[in-house]
Amino acid sequence: MEVPSGFLLGGVKRDVGVGLLFSETRCSVAGVFTRNTLRAAPVEYSEEVCSRGRARGVIVNSGHANALTGEEGMQDVLRMADGASRLFGVPDDEVLVCSTGVIGERPPVDRILKLAEEVWESRMGSDPEHVRAFNEAIMTTDTREKVSSYSGGDWCLLGVAKGAGMIHPRMSTMLAFLITDVRAASHDLQPVLRDAVEDTFNMISVDADESTNDTVLLMANGASGLEVGRDVPESEFEKAVRKVCEDLAREIARDGEGSTKLLEVEVRGARSRKEARRAARAVVSSNLVKAALFGEDPNWGRVGAAIGAARVDVDPSSLKIIFESSEGRVVTYDGGPVKFDEEEAARILSDREVRIVVDLGVGDESARAWGCDLTYDYVKINAEYRT
Amino acid sequence: MEVPSGFLLGGVKRDVGVGLLFSETRCSVAGVFTRNTLRAAPVEYSEEVCSRGRARGVIVNSGHANALTGEEGMQDVLRMADGASRLFGVPDDEVLVCSTGVIGERPPVDRILKLAEEVWESRMGSDPEHVRAFNEAIMTTDTREKVSSYSGGDWCLLGVAKGAGMIHPRMSTMLAFLITDVRAASHDLQPVLRDAVEDTFNMISVDADESTNDTVLLMANGASGLEVGRDVPESEFEKAVRKVCEDLAREIARDGEGSTKLLEVEVRGARSRKEARRAARAVVSSNLVKAALFGEDPNWGRVGAAIGAARVDVDPSSLKIIFESSEGRVVTYDGGPVKFDEEEAARILSDREVRIVVDLGVGDESARAWGCDLTYDYVKINAEYRT
Repeated sequence: MEVPSGFLLGGVKRDVGVGLLFSETRCSVAGVFTRNTLRAAPVEYSEEVCSRGRARGVIVNSGHANALTGEEGMQDVLRMADGASRLFGVPDDEVLVCSTGVIGERPPVDRILKLAEEVWESRMGSDPEHVRAFNEAIMTTDTREKVSSYSGGDWCLLGVAKGAGMIHPRMSTMLAFLITDVRAASHDLQPVLRDAVEDTFNMISVDADESTNDTVLLMANGASGLEVGRDVPESEFEKAVRKVCEDLAREIARDGEGSTKLLEVEVRGARSRKEARRAARAVVSSNLVKAALFGEDPNWGRVGAAIGAARVDVDPSSLKIIFESSEGRVVTYDGGPVKFDEEEAARILSDREVRIVVDLGVGDESARAWGCDLTYDYVKINAEYRT
Repeated sequence: MEVPSGFLLGGVKRDVGVGLLFSETRCSVAGVFTRNTLRAAPVEYSEEVCSRGRARGVIVNSGHANALTGEEGMQDVLRMADGASRLFGVPDDEVLVCSTGVIGERPPVDRILKLAEEVWESRMGSDPEHVRAFNEAIMTTDTREKVSSYSGGDWCLLGVAKGAGMIHPRMSTMLAFLITDVRAASHDLQPVLRDAVEDTFNMISVDADESTNDTVLLMANGASGLEVGRDVPESEFEKAVRKVCEDLAREIARDGEGSTKLLEVEVRGARSRKEARRAARAVVSSNLVKAALFGEDPNWGRVGAAIGAARVDVDPSSLKIIFESSEGRVVTYDGGPVKFDEEEAARILSDREVRIVVDLGVGDESARAWGCDLTYDYVKINAEYRT
């Protein structure tokens, strides 16, 4: 894991978690934010910063989402931005703010800024341990770190994320931070990030919903001296962003609450890309499919019902439903039910990563989505935790 | 429970279940069918019968859904219709056919017709026991009967339904049969049924999806001599249909797999009826809300997140979130988080029927939806059953 030139990260986790991300030079910045209509105050604020296209740093806290906190919540965001800008020595309109945690609770700003000061003074750096500390600081119910990187030789891209569905009462959120040392204009970054998010983070389903705080940021500081479109092909940069987003999205899906398996659903042969996406999301979000996966049952009927319920165009006489994993591949429906070896199918589904491939048989478009199984632990985690 | 004049019902449950419903005179008929794009053969067939507006009887089987069975599936439907028409002594284009059970399996038509013959010869009638036998015959994973009736004095309406979500592998479906002895034209019945279904059956969520076989039929034989619009006010008839549909829909929600509680969600203060419906469905379908309900946790943050994720217009400064049951009522959010008594809230949520009332604070429209909690048994039932 390589940290892009000119970036420093750090974090600390005590009663609350605080992470800082800083670039020695000004960055172009792009952001994609939740479409939840009850967006948290830091989301409103950071979107505005992104709209101006430049940033120097980020302050993140975990523990308190600062969502549904009204005008006082926005005051708290402004105080966090102001505090971080003083530490960083940069204008406060170049500081991004993110929060994750309990909905309806204001962040303890004084405490957060005190911890931020400690991080800034003694814990910032660009080694793997700093990335890890930043990642740990922003975790809530995550059970594992989520880091991915791409190396372009003389430049690189690093992504760090948190997210495991919404688990504690009033807990939220997926946050992802992508940093790179190439140079790119903000208006060029935004569509690249938007498209990558659309096919990756927006295609994972743990709880099927966008939370109040979901945020993905991409910062490019140009410290490598290389520019996208001149030194780095646009297509390579797009591929790198997409690769890192997909890695992180898969890790979030895998870390779904109580999950034991990662599910990837690929829908092919769709009339349109939109229908392919809708069908893939429908399968990966289906409680019945998710529970069958936990039971390692190749239940193609539930896959078919979910596809049909997504109201996409599909031709039952050319529809195909296939289950596959590193253990093998079994066709369960091919224009009609197919007799298959139940033992072989059970072995395929016993793997930690299972793919369901669905061919709708009516076109050439495709899409993928990621999720996890529905387990006793999911219910336990979400039912038994008491405020 | 009163059976409308001129109707006979009966059923038997052995290796498969077979129910018959017959009117001594020709009925006007209306039907509302699943919008799942992979609709079962009997759905395609019965919709066509309904489009002609007249019917004399229904044959239903449980055990095999006849969905995703291709052209052979349609042959099976035609044979079932033909067999029943011979028993009934009526034209086969006046016989409706419904199936529920395992997706991808053709119904054993010979066996079904043999059982239908037995029902027809010795088990038809219009007593409560016949209604019960019909209901039992069409059950799959249902744990209780679902019957509701309305008496208008000299006329009545009876509804019988099955449905408990999709439970066994490849199992499907909600079926509901409404019969009445008033006279009404088919083109008058259809909008009444459509509107009632929209606000009742289409607002329940056990698995959040419409299955391949969902069907609601309304048959009016005029045997009471009373006509809607002349002897029976249209508004009374509409109210009766809506009442019976709502009762049955609630019973289906209550009978959700593994459920311990019925959840009713009422959304008020919405900008439009469409948004009210979308918000109510979002809350009742949220796994996080459902698991919190099982845990008897007044988790208003999850309700807020689900509302926001439904992308409806909402004003956080006038938003209200209330939990209530026969045990009391607790306001948890009212333009901001409200401190409430956790013990009182837990007592309210310990009831078998819980209501969540959400006021979006931006308009005058409202809607209700019904669902159930998400439990260990849901996962158990859906994960552990093996083909």
